[in-house]
Amino acid sequence: MKYPANLQKLIASLMQLPGVGRKTAERFAFRIMEWDTTATEELTDSILASHTIKSCPECGLWMEDTCTFCERDPSALCVIAHARDVFAIEEMRVFCGRYHVLGGILSPMEGRYADSLRLKSLLERIQALQVKELIIALDATVEGDATALWLKESLTDSDIQISRLASGLPMGCTLDYVDGGTLARAFSDRLTF
Amino acid sequence: MKYPANLQKLIASLMQLPGVGRKTAERFAFRIMEWDTTATEELTDSILASHTIKSCPECGLWMEDTCTFCERDPSALCVIAHARDVFAIEEMRVFCGRYHVLGGILSPMEGRYADSLRLKSLLERIQALQVKELIIALDATVEGDATALWLKESLTDSDIQISRLASGLPMGCTLDYVDGGTLARAFSDRLTF
Repeated sequence: MKYPANLQKLIASLMQLPGVGRKTAERFAFRIMEWDTTATEELTDSILASHTIKSCPECGLWMEDTCTFCERDPSALCVIAHARDVFAIEEMRVFCGRYHVLGGILSPMEGRYADSLRLKSLLERIQALQVKELIIALDATVEGDATALWLKESLTDSDIQISRLASGLPMGCTLDYVDGGTLARAFSDRLTF
Repeated sequence: MKYPANLQKLIASLMQLPGVGRKTAERFAFRIMEWDTTATEELTDSILASHTIKSCPECGLWMEDTCTFCERDPSALCVIAHARDVFAIEEMRVFCGRYHVLGGILSPMEGRYADSLRLKSLLERIQALQVKELIIALDATVEGDATALWLKESLTDSDIQISRLASGLPMGCTLDYVDGGTLARAFSDRLTF
């Protein structure tokens, strides 16, 4: 039997969320139908309001009125793929420089090429801010590695120090459970002790 | 560091969905922020529209203009706890009678007592429709069992046949993996073969 049309539409919309299949979307929809109008409107209002969040024209991070990140130490610049990546790094309190959002990583399979990334503004900012160190903080995937390499090659002319996040064994990991790729990388990037 | 206020609000709203914790809500929110206005409005519109879905005053199932279930064979009536339960039963194509939504199950721990359930209208419908068989299709939990027993006792005066869903081994289950409660029930409800 078929759900009422409005319910079908809601389920189809909820299935657009990442990792949400039909069963989960149904659970969400059934719960939403039980909510009172206040709770429902709170959700819809906040969904619509999320589109009013601005990106900093300078670094590309999300900001409210002013970008607090663009007031920090300009000598170190951390390149991240997406604005959301900043939260994971900031939680660690290991970096107090500025950020630059690249806007994605190279992925020819998904049609994302170099011209869609914010490289030009990165080069301009490196000049303007007199950046001393550039930290490339991209995913430890094939695409992330390729993007890091491409960034490094795009910056051969500048004499800044370029570093990237270390790859290797995650904390708490035992050797018999680690995957081959991670172990191979941990071997080739081994540190003198 | 803190998310922008509107993003925080969206995450808090999404965390109200069943089974959604902070991490999942963040993933949903980040994806929603990437959507264009059309996709966002589709979701918010369907959330708001879901509240326009009506309940059939007769059986309690969701309906659009007319309730197609209330046109079916009235001799068999299937009691379910929630309107959503009908979809699982209808998918099996084993029942062609009418339904009655009880509106929940007895759960004193959660403050749901007999007076919040639609028993009175059930008794009226049994009289009016001249129901011959009542099938109790409630959860196979302690609360579901208690509600079924309470229903049976409420109906001692009427001479209709009352049945409930069988409990036992689920299909494809092996004995060494089944839990004790299920196995005990399968034993006590064993069928002559």
